[in-house]
Amino acid sequence: MISKNKIKLIKSLSEKKYRLKEKLFLAEGNKLSADILNSGLKIHSLICTEQFYNPDKVVFSKPYEILIVTQDEIRKCSLLKSPQQALVICEIPESSFSAAGLKNNLTLCLDGIQDPGNFGTIIRIADWFGINTICASENTADVYNPKVVQSSMGAFLRVNVFYLDLAGIIKFANENSIPTFGAYLDGRNIYKEVLPENGLIVMGNEGQGISKDLGNLITNRIHIPSFPNQGSVSDSLNVSTATAIICSEFRRNKLWNYSK
Amino acid sequence: MISKNKIKLIKSLSEKKYRLKEKLFLAEGNKLSADILNSGLKIHSLICTEQFYNPDKVVFSKPYEILIVTQDEIRKCSLLKSPQQALVICEIPESSFSAAGLKNNLTLCLDGIQDPGNFGTIIRIADWFGINTICASENTADVYNPKVVQSSMGAFLRVNVFYLDLAGIIKFANENSIPTFGAYLDGRNIYKEVLPENGLIVMGNEGQGISKDLGNLITNRIHIPSFPNQGSVSDSLNVSTATAIICSEFRRNKLWNYSK
Repeated sequence: MISKNKIKLIKSLSEKKYRLKEKLFLAEGNKLSADILNSGLKIHSLICTEQFYNPDKVVFSKPYEILIVTQDEIRKCSLLKSPQQALVICEIPESSFSAAGLKNNLTLCLDGIQDPGNFGTIIRIADWFGINTICASENTADVYNPKVVQSSMGAFLRVNVFYLDLAGIIKFANENSIPTFGAYLDGRNIYKEVLPENGLIVMGNEGQGISKDLGNLITNRIHIPSFPNQGSVSDSLNVSTATAIICSEFRRNKLWNYSK
Repeated sequence: MISKNKIKLIKSLSEKKYRLKEKLFLAEGNKLSADILNSGLKIHSLICTEQFYNPDKVVFSKPYEILIVTQDEIRKCSLLKSPQQALVICEIPESSFSAAGLKNNLTLCLDGIQDPGNFGTIIRIADWFGINTICASENTADVYNPKVVQSSMGAFLRVNVFYLDLAGIIKFANENSIPTFGAYLDGRNIYKEVLPENGLIVMGNEGQGISKDLGNLITNRIHIPSFPNQGSVSDSLNVSTATAIICSEFRRNKLWNYSK
């Protein structure tokens, strides 16, 4: 039996102010819940059906509350249209940013990405292409927004997102000879660029692109050209689509060598 | 003043059966409406505010119904959470598929893409990379679903989507020496492939991938490798993300040569 207070807590975690207050966030779905239970995250509570509660597949050994409930009760507390058999409430982990790490890694910087689906997809792309750190401007969506958590499909467990003053980060990069790249509609053809292994890639807001202040600091403006057609073409690519292609370009040499 | 019947018609166009019955579909938003009014599509009616109705910017010369309404009335009939100043009801255009065109073009085949957002994003990617034809299995989302129309951002005006028996299309390709490529988790490293200018690229359903029947017909299985990491990584990329990277790889040689 799930209490009214627990349902209220779960629902409240759709809002950032309550996530900050409780220092908790919510994840839903069988695969995602299992991934989280098997990860190093501190769990507050697990709400699941008997069907999900299978200790052969998932580690249930940690000291957290486990509520075995009916599918109907899951439905009552879920934020999803099609709830599955498990929800996990987790503690928001503390992590500390180290600018020194920027020197020897490829890092994504997100300047005001608003759409939770885009943000989640970008985290998944970062994970796929071995990018472990995302620096996000304060006006970027919250990584612990349940929609971001869902659309990242567990990739948020492996990619650290830090909310920082991006101008400061890019200045640090410039002072330390870390190359910076920004995606622009009038940038240089990315396919002709010799891209470094390490550096910063800055992606801008869905409608406005990269803010002017940051743009003035970025050394390399790159662009994904569209295929020359007889007629007109879309004005731009979706920001997560563009991020995918840019990350693929940065990694393709290494992936050529490393992979089968 | 907008009639109750008109509101009912607009709302009904969120459902495929009514779109088929009326042979109409709905598009919303200022930019999309303007793009459609300036395109060759046959318009049934335009519902917009006085603010949108600016003949300097948009061609309003065609013989269709124009309803100038208040923002409140737009809100009453809109399917969007944040309605803008214009909605257009359009006739679903008739178009006929020609298999002969497959020989000299790059064509996308979608096997059961379910999510309207993914489908719209894929249409936008096709448009960007000069792919004018998408062959979709019957169980793929409907291109005139308002969510597909919205997320394609007008790209559906330039990319023809045909609902066909994909097995027949791939058999035709095989018989006519048109190379076929399918995206698989166990395919060959796409970065090592020499990709042709023309051919078929098959992308599978979000959860199930490409159906077995089709898989048996596809000549080349390709894969986007993930960056080798110390730990685990996401199981897969979102299908629209994967489509973006694959289309980029197919076009990168030409884009290298063509673009500034």
